[in-house]
Amino acid sequence: MEVVPGRPDLNCRTMLDMIGEARRGGAHIIVFPEMSVPGYLLGNTWGQRAFLRDCEEYGRQVIKASSGICVLFGNVGVDWNRTTGGRVCKYNAVFAAQNGRLIKNKYYPYPFQIKEYATGCPDFDEARHFCSLSDLARDMGPKAGELKQPVRINIGGEPLLLACSFYNEGNGDERAAMPLKGAHLLINIAASPFAVGKNNLRKRFLSGLAAGAGAPLIFVNNVGIQNSGKTVYTYDGGSAIFDGFGEIIDCCAPFTPELKFVDLDFGCRGRNAIPIPVAQGSDIGSTYSALNYGIRKFLAMIGMKRVVIGVSGGIDSAVSAALYGTVLDPGDLLLVSMPSMYTSRTTRDLAGKLARNLGCLYSVMPIQDAVEFTVGQISKTPVINMKTGKRQQLAVAPFVAENIQARDRSARILAGVAAAFGGGFTCNSNKSEMTIGYATMCGDLAGFLAALADLWKYQVYGLAGYLNEHVYRREVIPRESIDIVPSAELSFEQAVDEGKGDPVIYPYHDYLFRAFMEREDRVAPEDILTWWVEGVLEERIGCRPGLVKRIFKDTGEFIFDLERWWTQYTGIGVAKRIQSPPVLAVSRRPYGFGQREAQNRVHFTASYLRLKKEALKHKTTEQ
Amino acid sequence: MEVVPGRPDLNCRTMLDMIGEARRGGAHIIVFPEMSVPGYLLGNTWGQRAFLRDCEEYGRQVIKASSGICVLFGNVGVDWNRTTGGRVCKYNAVFAAQNGRLIKNKYYPYPFQIKEYATGCPDFDEARHFCSLSDLARDMGPKAGELKQPVRINIGGEPLLLACSFYNEGNGDERAAMPLKGAHLLINIAASPFAVGKNNLRKRFLSGLAAGAGAPLIFVNNVGIQNSGKTVYTYDGGSAIFDGFGEIIDCCAPFTPELKFVDLDFGCRGRNAIPIPVAQGSDIGSTYSALNYGIRKFLAMIGMKRVVIGVSGGIDSAVSAALYGTVLDPGDLLLVSMPSMYTSRTTRDLAGKLARNLGCLYSVMPIQDAVEFTVGQISKTPVINMKTGKRQQLAVAPFVAENIQARDRSARILAGVAAAFGGGFTCNSNKSEMTIGYATMCGDLAGFLAALADLWKYQVYGLAGYLNEHVYRREVIPRESIDIVPSAELSFEQAVDEGKGDPVIYPYHDYLFRAFMEREDRVAPEDILTWWVEGVLEERIGCRPGLVKRIFKDTGEFIFDLERWWTQYTGIGVAKRIQSPPVLAVSRRPYGFGQREAQNRVHFTASYLRLKKEALKHKTTEQ
Repeated sequence: MEVVPGRPDLNCRTMLDMIGEARRGGAHIIVFPEMSVPGYLLGNTWGQRAFLRDCEEYGRQVIKASSGICVLFGNVGVDWNRTTGGRVCKYNAVFAAQNGRLIKNKYYPYPFQIKEYATGCPDFDEARHFCSLSDLARDMGPKAGELKQPVRINIGGEPLLLACSFYNEGNGDERAAMPLKGAHLLINIAASPFAVGKNNLRKRFLSGLAAGAGAPLIFVNNVGIQNSGKTVYTYDGGSAIFDGFGEIIDCCAPFTPELKFVDLDFGCRGRNAIPIPVAQGSDIGSTYSALNYGIRKFLAMIGMKRVVIGVSGGIDSAVSAALYGTVLDPGDLLLVSMPSMYTSRTTRDLAGKLARNLGCLYSVMPIQDAVEFTVGQISKTPVINMKTGKRQQLAVAPFVAENIQARDRSARILAGVAAAFGGGFTCNSNKSEMTIGYATMCGDLAGFLAALADLWKYQVYGLAGYLNEHVYRREVIPRESIDIVPSAELSFEQAVDEGKGDPVIYPYHDYLFRAFMEREDRVAPEDILTWWVEGVLEERIGCRPGLVKRIFKDTGEFIFDLERWWTQYTGIGVAKRIQSPPVLAVSRRPYGFGQREAQNRVHFTASYLRLKKEALKHKTTEQ
Repeated sequence: MEVVPGRPDLNCRTMLDMIGEARRGGAHIIVFPEMSVPGYLLGNTWGQRAFLRDCEEYGRQVIKASSGICVLFGNVGVDWNRTTGGRVCKYNAVFAAQNGRLIKNKYYPYPFQIKEYATGCPDFDEARHFCSLSDLARDMGPKAGELKQPVRINIGGEPLLLACSFYNEGNGDERAAMPLKGAHLLINIAASPFAVGKNNLRKRFLSGLAAGAGAPLIFVNNVGIQNSGKTVYTYDGGSAIFDGFGEIIDCCAPFTPELKFVDLDFGCRGRNAIPIPVAQGSDIGSTYSALNYGIRKFLAMIGMKRVVIGVSGGIDSAVSAALYGTVLDPGDLLLVSMPSMYTSRTTRDLAGKLARNLGCLYSVMPIQDAVEFTVGQISKTPVINMKTGKRQQLAVAPFVAENIQARDRSARILAGVAAAFGGGFTCNSNKSEMTIGYATMCGDLAGFLAALADLWKYQVYGLAGYLNEHVYRREVIPRESIDIVPSAELSFEQAVDEGKGDPVIYPYHDYLFRAFMEREDRVAPEDILTWWVEGVLEERIGCRPGLVKRIFKDTGEFIFDLERWWTQYTGIGVAKRIQSPPVLAVSRRPYGFGQREAQNRVHFTASYLRLKKEALKHKTTEQ
C-alpha cells in the first residue's frame, strides 16, 4: 500500500478498503507494511501525544474491521505508563487482529509485537523515537529471544503460527529477524526506501531467512514517499512471497500499490507455484523509475501542479526538463531560457530545441539588461560613512558579476515566473556540484526540490541516454547537450564554443568526491594521497585506470587539486548544503539528514601534512 | 579553553600553552573540558579514520607534555579492534596523564575513562557516534558501576583519588555522574552549550553532586562555538569549583577562556575560601552575551570581516544592525535601505536614523525600477506553446509582486552589495516568523546566518531595549522602530502609517507558537482547543490573562486562526526552514537539527475534529 506519512486518517481509509476487498476475495490473512497507520519519517511529530492517541484510534478502526479475516499491520505501540527522557515510551510495533480483536500473546506485556533492534541507518533516527524489544528485554529481565513468540491464529479451525519480524536497514540484519522454530509462516514487514542496488540485498537476506526456517515468508513493504526534511526517499515496495526454499514465488511491481492474492501450500514449504524469474532491471533504469515516482509524489504532496525550469542548453537542466516531462502535462511545464552576453549561440539554440522536442511551454527572458542595471546600481550608488560623511563607491569584480547573473536567473526571473505560472521552479544541481558547492545560493542552488542532487555527473549522462533511448525512444535531450563541454557560461573564461567550461574534471572528480562522502569509513586526503603515492588510486576510488596520471603532470599538481576540492567539500560546500533544497534520494548515501554535517574549519591531519612533505620532496629528488 | 571543533591541531596548541603556564604557576593538576582535543559537534567527520588517528596523535602530544603535572583532558578514545555497524568503536573519554604517561586503571580495559551514558539531548546525536560505558559494561558482563573507579594520582608523594565524570545534557542526569566513595576530588568535564536559564540547572546538579560526595568538585566546560549544520551553539564555559558543601568558591567569567589557579584545602571539604555570590544575570542580558559572542565567533570561523544588513526601519533589522554593531567596526558594517513605493516616509527616515546612530556605512538603493522591470519582463515576454505555436502571457498577481520585492532586496541587491563589499548579508528573521514561514525564500529568509531566529518577537523587543539601555546606553535603535506596528510593507494593505501591518498578533501568537514547538511533549491543536474550551488557554501557554477573549470574538474565529497557523507551521513553514540559514541558538529548543522536521501533509487528529464540531455546535446553541 501507499503509506502517507503523518496521515493516519488517509492510511486507515486505504487499509479498510483493502481489507474489504481481501475479504471479498476470500483471503484468510492480509498483511500491511511497517508503520502502515502513522507512516515512519515524522520527525518530532512522534513527540505529540495527540498524534499518538490518533494513531491508536485509527488502529482500533483497523482492528474492528478484521471480522472474518486476520489482519497484520504496523503501527506505533504506546506504553502510556512508561517514559524515557520525559517522553512517553513508544514502540515500532506489529499488531495482529482477527474477528475484531487483537490476538494477544501471554508471554508479552503488550497486545502487539515489538521491533527487535533500532536500525543503525543514520537516515532514520529510530533509536531517538522508539524503544526496541531489546531495550524492553533488558528492563524486564529475560532476553529478547525469549520474548519472541509466534502469533497463533486460526484459519478454518486450524491453528497457524506466524513469526513476525521487521526488515532492518543497515548492518546487523542477521540479529534482527530470528526465525521462530515451528512457525508455519514468516511475516517480515518493512518501511524500506529505494536505493540503487538495495533490492538485491533485500532479496538475499529474505531468501536466507525463508530457507533457514524452511517456511514460506511474506515480505511487505510500502510504496509512497517520505522525507526527513532535507532528504526525500522513495519507497519502491517490492513486496514478495518466498517459499520455504528461499525462492520468490510472487511479487508486486515496484512503486505500485497492489492487493495481491497468494495461495500457499504449507505441505510443500509454501511452494504452490514455479518460482518466478526476478527481473533484473538496470541501475540507471531503476534510478529513472525512482526519480519519476519521487517527483510525481512530491508534487502531489505539496499540491504543486505546474513547474518552471531554467534551461541553459547544458545537460543538467535538459535532463531535469526531460524528467519532469515524464510526470507533467506539456502545458504545465514551462522552460525558460535566460541568455546573457556570455551565452553561446550553441546553447541558446539547444534550449529551444529541447523545448520543441518536449512540446512544452517555452519563453526566452534575457538577463543582460537587468544584470547591467544591478551592476550599475551597486557600483554607482554612494555608500556614506555616517560618522564622517565621506562617500565611496563599491566596485563589482568579475566573479561578483558572475553570481549576480546566477541570482538574476533564479531569484529574479524563475521565482517570479513560477509564482505567476502557479507553480515552483526546480534546482538542477547534481551531486558533484553539491559536494563542492559549485552553485550560487539564491541562484542555481535555489528551487523547491533538487531532483538530480543524488546523481554524480556520470549518472546524469547515463540518465540522459536512458531518457532518450528507453523512455521517450527519440532524441528529446539534444545530442549536442550531451556532447558539449559542461559549463556555467558566466564569463568568457567558460565559453563552450571554445571548448572551455567547468573547473571540474568529472571522470576523475566524480569518483574522488564519491570516496569523500559515500563510504561508511569516510576517506580523507590522507587516504587519497597514500593511494596516489602507492599507485593504486584509480583502483581504490573506481575511476578509469591510467586517468589520473594523464590529468596531473606531477604530485604538486595532484596535491593542489586534492586540497582545493577537500577545502570546498568541507568548507563552503557544507554552508551551501545547509541552505539547499530537499534532495531526492536514489543512493544509500544522499546528502541531508543522514549525512550529519557541521560547518567547521577545514582540517588536514598531521599525518597528511607529513605525507605531503615527503611526496613533494620525493618528487623533487626524482627530477 | 576555547575548543575549535574539528581542529585537534589548534586545540592541542592551546592546551600545550596552558599546561606550560600552569606548570610555571606551580599547579599540580590541570583539567581541560570534554572532547578538548577534537571538539564535539563534528557530524560524520567522526567516521573518518584519518581524523581519529589524528586525534590520537595530538592526544599523545598532550600526554607527553605532562611532566611534573597531572593533566586531565577529553578526547575520543578509539578501540580499533571493535566495530559497531561497520564503524570503528569510539568513546567519549577522559584521559589522565602525569609525567608523560597515562595513568591506567587495572579495572579498566582501556587507558582512559568513558562517558557513562549518551546524552538524550536531540541536538547532539551522541549515541550515533559513540559507544558508552553502559554499552561496554553490557558487553563485558559487570555493571557500569563496577567499571567506575577513581583515578589515583600522586601529588608530592601523597595519593589523591579523582572521580571523573561527564556533564550530561538533557534528562537522566542523576544516573550519569555517580560520585565515587572515597574520592578526594570530583572532576566533571563538559561540552555544554549555552541556553537561557540553563546555568541554574547546571549549578543545582553540580552542587548536589559535590555536597552528596562531601568532596570538592571541579567543573570544566569549554567556550567557543560549535554547530550541527543548521544550528549554531555558543559555549559559555562557566567552569567553576564547588566545595564539598556544594557552594561555588570560584568560577570563570562566561564566554571567556581563562586559566584559573585554585588552592584546595582537602581538610575542610575543599573550602579554602568564602563561597562567592553568584551573579544572577537577566535572561535578556545573557541572551545578548550569547548573541554577541556567537556572531563574533561565527564571523571569525568563516573568515568574514564585513557585513551588510538590509534595514527596513522596523524592529528586527534594527536590532540585527545594533547587534552586529557591537561586534564590527562601523566601517565594516553597511546598512542598506531599499525603499519601494510601499515604503512609508516614517520607516525610510528610521533606517537612516539607525545608521546615523551607529555611525556606520549607509546606502539607499531603491527597488522600484527593478521591480517594475521584472514585473514587466515576466508579464510581457511571450510564453510559447512549442507544440501548437500559441503564445500567451503570464499575469503577475499582487501577492506575486510582493515576493518579487522581497527577492529583489535580498537576492539582487544585498547579495550583490555584500559580495562587492567583501562580506555577507544577514537574515533578520525571528523565531515567530520562522515558525510560520512568514518570510520569502531567496528574500528576507536568505543570508549567511539567522542571528535572531531563536528569539520570539517579544524577545526581540526585549533585546532592543537592552541594547539601548545597557549596551549602547543611548538610543541607537530609534524609539519609533520599537513603537511602530510590525509590517513587511510589501503592499498598501501593510501601510504602517495607517497602523496596518503583519497578520501575526505577537502577544498571543508568540506563546501559541512556543507551545507548538518548544515543549518536549509537543502541543497540537487538540490540546489548544481543549484549553480554549476549558478557559485555561492563557495560563497553559503563558500569555497575558484575558488576552485571547479580546482577540477573538467567538470560537469560530479562534478555530480559524488556530488552523491557519498550525497549517503554516507544519506545512510551508517546514519547507522554508529546510532552506533557511543556520540559526544562532539561545534557547533549549532552537530550530535545526534538534528539531527533526519532515515536510509532510498537514494533519488534524480525529479527536480535534470531534472537539471542533462540538465547540462550534455549542457556540451556535449559545447564541
